[in-house]
Amino acid sequence: MKARLAAELERADCVAAVVLGHGDADPDLAAFAGGAHLGDAFVVVPRGGAPRLAYYTPMEREEAARSGLEPLTPEELDLARLVREHAEAGDFLAAWLEAALAASGVAPGRLALAGSWPAGVLVDAVGRLAERGWSFVAGNEALRRARKPKSAAEIAEIERVAGVVVATFRAVAGRLAEALVRDGELWSEGERLTVARLKRAVALGFAAAGLSEPRGNIVAPAEEGGVPHNAGTPDRVLRAGEALVVDLFPRGRLFADATRTFCVGPVPEPLAHAHAAVRAALEQAHRLAQPGARGWYLQEATCALFAARGWPTPIDTPGTLSGYVHGLGHGVGYELHEYPSFRREAGEEGTLAAGDVLTLEPGLYAPEPGGFGVRLEDLVVLAAEGPRNLTPLPLDLDPRAAIASGS
Amino acid sequence: MKARLAAELERADCVAAVVLGHGDADPDLAAFAGGAHLGDAFVVVPRGGAPRLAYYTPMEREEAARSGLEPLTPEELDLARLVREHAEAGDFLAAWLEAALAASGVAPGRLALAGSWPAGVLVDAVGRLAERGWSFVAGNEALRRARKPKSAAEIAEIERVAGVVVATFRAVAGRLAEALVRDGELWSEGERLTVARLKRAVALGFAAAGLSEPRGNIVAPAEEGGVPHNAGTPDRVLRAGEALVVDLFPRGRLFADATRTFCVGPVPEPLAHAHAAVRAALEQAHRLAQPGARGWYLQEATCALFAARGWPTPIDTPGTLSGYVHGLGHGVGYELHEYPSFRREAGEEGTLAAGDVLTLEPGLYAPEPGGFGVRLEDLVVLAAEGPRNLTPLPLDLDPRAAIASGS
Repeated sequence: MKARLAAELERADCVAAVVLGHGDADPDLAAFAGGAHLGDAFVVVPRGGAPRLAYYTPMEREEAARSGLEPLTPEELDLARLVREHAEAGDFLAAWLEAALAASGVAPGRLALAGSWPAGVLVDAVGRLAERGWSFVAGNEALRRARKPKSAAEIAEIERVAGVVVATFRAVAGRLAEALVRDGELWSEGERLTVARLKRAVALGFAAAGLSEPRGNIVAPAEEGGVPHNAGTPDRVLRAGEALVVDLFPRGRLFADATRTFCVGPVPEPLAHAHAAVRAALEQAHRLAQPGARGWYLQEATCALFAARGWPTPIDTPGTLSGYVHGLGHGVGYELHEYPSFRREAGEEGTLAAGDVLTLEPGLYAPEPGGFGVRLEDLVVLAAEGPRNLTPLPLDLDPRAAIASGS
Repeated sequence: MKARLAAELERADCVAAVVLGHGDADPDLAAFAGGAHLGDAFVVVPRGGAPRLAYYTPMEREEAARSGLEPLTPEELDLARLVREHAEAGDFLAAWLEAALAASGVAPGRLALAGSWPAGVLVDAVGRLAERGWSFVAGNEALRRARKPKSAAEIAEIERVAGVVVATFRAVAGRLAEALVRDGELWSEGERLTVARLKRAVALGFAAAGLSEPRGNIVAPAEEGGVPHNAGTPDRVLRAGEALVVDLFPRGRLFADATRTFCVGPVPEPLAHAHAAVRAALEQAHRLAQPGARGWYLQEATCALFAARGWPTPIDTPGTLSGYVHGLGHGVGYELHEYPSFRREAGEEGTLAAGDVLTLEPGLYAPEPGGFGVRLEDLVVLAAEGPRNLTPLPLDLDPRAAIASGS
């Protein structure tokens, strides 16, 4: 990432990048600061120089050290004095940034700004710095481009998280497969099986492995699954014969992301047809996801496949809310959605390349009452030796298939 | 909150507030959008008007509806066209904000900016809007002030989360109380008891209750606990006769926060002395935490108590890293640290008032090798009928006290 970031700074003619954030919560900062738990903090990356980490309080010195970065300590920057002299948050941030840049040998000039920060405070600080010779360009995109190809350590971490996701899908499938059906409703351990109970089982599995779910998850039955980002109504009872979209995207140091769709009991004909089409689309996408291919080319091929089977797609029916309604996938890393891009308008970041980690997630949606969603999503790394599926679970609607594959 | 925000907008002479964020991850936005899981989204609050929620994709329409706010839908704002016409992220954000403000009946003027957003994109967007008649003031502080007194529903949610924290402390104490001691090390279920194992037990307890730990937690033994923000080294084995600082701050819709310090086996004399002083400081703080009191007054009283027992404090020894090294507490809400403030410089937000939820957390620290930390932290609501401790656990070092209290 560092060489790519240096090239980005060169290209944008910036003297440095400043990456702001709350520790591991901001993806730009997390790419530098790793698992350190920090409050307000930022990294200064002088063009051609090594990144340095500024943190707010001496109480965080040991957390800051976990990042492995050379620190810009509160003592070195005399933050106690700056706090006294700058009561307004924006004024203080401006003073802190200037002190850190000076200590990093960066003279006033153009900065690439990345990470995130409370909006009002930031705009105030930037306004003050603009009066003192600093100027700013947006750096979030540059950082996202810089971290498109993952390092071996990053891939290993994503693979670890994906392994937990796979194990969790087996547990969910087991819970569904073992459920009793009474009057169409699923029962487990003497109680109706609800969305909330499945979500709790998922949360426990991730917590035991040290993963969090900062973006939640999706456990969406029937027509709720027909709206791709509907997270599922907690107290809804699951039923036989309906589709259940389960989309899990926990984070360790980085994210993983995968989706399966299940159906307990006899599968209604429309759901079976949609599932067969989505499965064919995912298999095609796996064949096409190779270094050098454009993400948009995969999206076009997916739309062509669905259109040939009679489904509306975003290409022939822009804005459609039924049929195929979204992009084929996205990169995955410190952010749940990062590069490569599958959008038509994408530049260089729209071309798949070695080291990329990305999802392939075709889906079909019928959001009307009595409707359903079907989505199948794998997580793929384009490794040097070829693409590798990090979520090699069966694609079947029948949850029993996923359990059997675990032995 | 709404009446207080309206007054803030009046005072700052703003035509509206704009609160940006990633769904429930940003505390400013969470105060409006509740538990909705959204990607990029913002709220427009016209001065004197009702807040409206803008979200990015029709796929999130059902999540957006969970907020209970009137939506500014992607269709109404014709986002599909804006996306096509504005390729740069900052250019698009500017166009989206303008469309949402226009649809909310807000003409160009001064905006209070709050929430958070990717830094470079935001600064770019704000620069463009400044050329079109908009100006900006920092609104994060105004929002934080506006949400200082909690609503009954917010207090109920914090109390629910605090209840889970109390139960989790009992489980941690039980684990410690039942541990075997071999060669000074604690053993549990046939294995050495490490920081990581206790953290996992905590994470499982919270996950089962639907809580997350976006800021992690602190399980810090001996001299690690001597640095207040040290989260604890995962593979460190716990030992008899050393202090263990356990600070838990999970989030449901809002945060709760409490700390206890434990010691298994005979307590070394210096630790016992420090613990007695911290306990006395907490008891004093409970007596002083009343509506109308200044947070800084409580801090002064705490420093006086510690100084009288011979410990350095931030008042007599600014910047000290041993003794009492931090503030007495902080408000708790959508953010882990919000108002009331305990700082000397605080304005109106430094006065405790009915409806406030706040921590009281005196501590003493000896960060040198062989050292220790002791911190005792309660979470208090200043209810109409009087202050109520939401974390009424024993304060003892001996973990057996916490278990006994649970019956």
